[in-house]
Amino acid sequence: MKYYIGVDIGGTNTKIGILDDKFNILIEDRMKTLSKNGARETFKRIWNKVLELSKEINIKEEQIEGIGLGIPGPVENQSIVKIAANFSWGNNFDAKKLMEEITGKKVKVENDVRTIAIGEHLFGAGIGSSNLAVIPIGTGIAAGIILNNKIVSGSHGFAGEFGHIVVDKEGYKCGCGLTGCVETYVSATGLIRYGKKMMEEKKEGLMYERFKNSMNEFDAYHIFEYLYKDDIAMEVFDNFSDKLAYAISILLNTLNLDTIILAGGVAKSADIIIERVKEYLPKYTLSISLEGLQIKKSKLLDSAGIKGAAALILNN
Amino acid sequence: MKYYIGVDIGGTNTKIGILDDKFNILIEDRMKTLSKNGARETFKRIWNKVLELSKEINIKEEQIEGIGLGIPGPVENQSIVKIAANFSWGNNFDAKKLMEEITGKKVKVENDVRTIAIGEHLFGAGIGSSNLAVIPIGTGIAAGIILNNKIVSGSHGFAGEFGHIVVDKEGYKCGCGLTGCVETYVSATGLIRYGKKMMEEKKEGLMYERFKNSMNEFDAYHIFEYLYKDDIAMEVFDNFSDKLAYAISILLNTLNLDTIILAGGVAKSADIIIERVKEYLPKYTLSISLEGLQIKKSKLLDSAGIKGAAALILNN
Repeated sequence: MKYYIGVDIGGTNTKIGILDDKFNILIEDRMKTLSKNGARETFKRIWNKVLELSKEINIKEEQIEGIGLGIPGPVENQSIVKIAANFSWGNNFDAKKLMEEITGKKVKVENDVRTIAIGEHLFGAGIGSSNLAVIPIGTGIAAGIILNNKIVSGSHGFAGEFGHIVVDKEGYKCGCGLTGCVETYVSATGLIRYGKKMMEEKKEGLMYERFKNSMNEFDAYHIFEYLYKDDIAMEVFDNFSDKLAYAISILLNTLNLDTIILAGGVAKSADIIIERVKEYLPKYTLSISLEGLQIKKSKLLDSAGIKGAAALILNN
Repeated sequence: MKYYIGVDIGGTNTKIGILDDKFNILIEDRMKTLSKNGARETFKRIWNKVLELSKEINIKEEQIEGIGLGIPGPVENQSIVKIAANFSWGNNFDAKKLMEEITGKKVKVENDVRTIAIGEHLFGAGIGSSNLAVIPIGTGIAAGIILNNKIVSGSHGFAGEFGHIVVDKEGYKCGCGLTGCVETYVSATGLIRYGKKMMEEKKEGLMYERFKNSMNEFDAYHIFEYLYKDDIAMEVFDNFSDKLAYAISILLNTLNLDTIILAGGVAKSADIIIERVKEYLPKYTLSISLEGLQIKKSKLLDSAGIKGAAALILNN
């Protein structure tokens, strides 16, 4: 029996799973990434954790077929991390080579959003779809795009920067340097900022009454808690949905996708977001591009990254 | 020796070429499409023209390896024209089957913008690029997108509707039913409309003086004729370039393309458009997505469609 390792390396936490050859997760654990100790140290700790988990379920090291790593930042040729996003591991960092050195196993590396997309496509809400985008919405927003059953990486691994489509030229300055990116509205950060701004301006409504003396406690999920009960929550939500629909419409018009999958932290409220996004879509999307379109929420949730990363090893 | 036929069927004219196995065009001709006589009649006339041209250069019918057809409108599986765009040939029209029936040859069909993109990619300005968009600008605007050296068709052949990215929610109603599409500004039609509107409002400048009594003679190319000599021409051109840059930025951010090729009637002025688009791009595009980017003009011009169509036969 062969086994596959899927690793989802995040800025704070790293998730690790061992999968069988049917891609069932047999055991799964998480640990602090502690990236400051350097890439080699981090990768070694991940490998030790893998060996420890293997032992727990009686898998021998030689039964491990390979390791897939999902890492934030642009990844080229499923090996090189082009730009240090959340880690100070340097640009053009050969993550594949380092992990192969440490483990003696076959390693493939991919951008974390793309591993999530691959996971949903092969094992989750994207089964049966050939042209899809998986859009995780959390602190930020991006898209893992799959066309003709192949993940789109772009010429240098930078594809999927969906969050930096400019939707409001007079909008907020974005961390990326541009102005009015999708991400400034359609993200947890965006919801909080716009919600606070509206409450500070209008000073009314149930949500304002609750947070007026504790603005710091106001979080993105409160917008969803106060929907249909508070005008500010509704306006922030409508703006979020409108901007998201606009950005999705562009993918639909240019790529004629059959499926959109919402994932990430905000996916907990995906049902209500999908409902509203569907109302806005026809404003920006050709009717032919809406035909047969499915908009779904993530099915694998937190496991999508692990499954997608492990699948890199299979997927040649 | 084997020969390949490339046909570029347009609303008014149809271009036909015979290519050798190195994809040199040996002979080329054009005829009226006369689509009103029906698809069968039109395809028969095309085939007769092919036989006539073959005879002229001493090619026997049995030496013809196959026929590629470029047709306006969405094409699925290189065979079915999903929606009658310029012709009244019905929806879900099996162009491949009909042409195979008439000719007894292997036939492949593709959307005309995609054949142009394939032509430029294999034989023109796109040689050496793996991730590119070819953007013909004429009466309208669209994009033939190639990723990882494969043409993107989408789930039902509708991909590439780049001209219907909404860039101005308060803009002009577009023929497609949406409002403020790229095409309403970035097209010959858009240039003429905006130019006329500005002249009628401002009633000044060299261009206005020339056309004030003959507005019907005002055409898109006059904008380029009056550049740097007339404020209205400059403003119309800047708006055109800004909107085009915006739409291109979205392709760059989401797909990380290495090459953009401008084609179509407006490509005659491509040098000056490219120069200005490059100035606007950083306003909307991540700096990483601009790295190494090439923006070029069409090399094959009118032959791109014929060459791309003929190449469909080779390209399995």
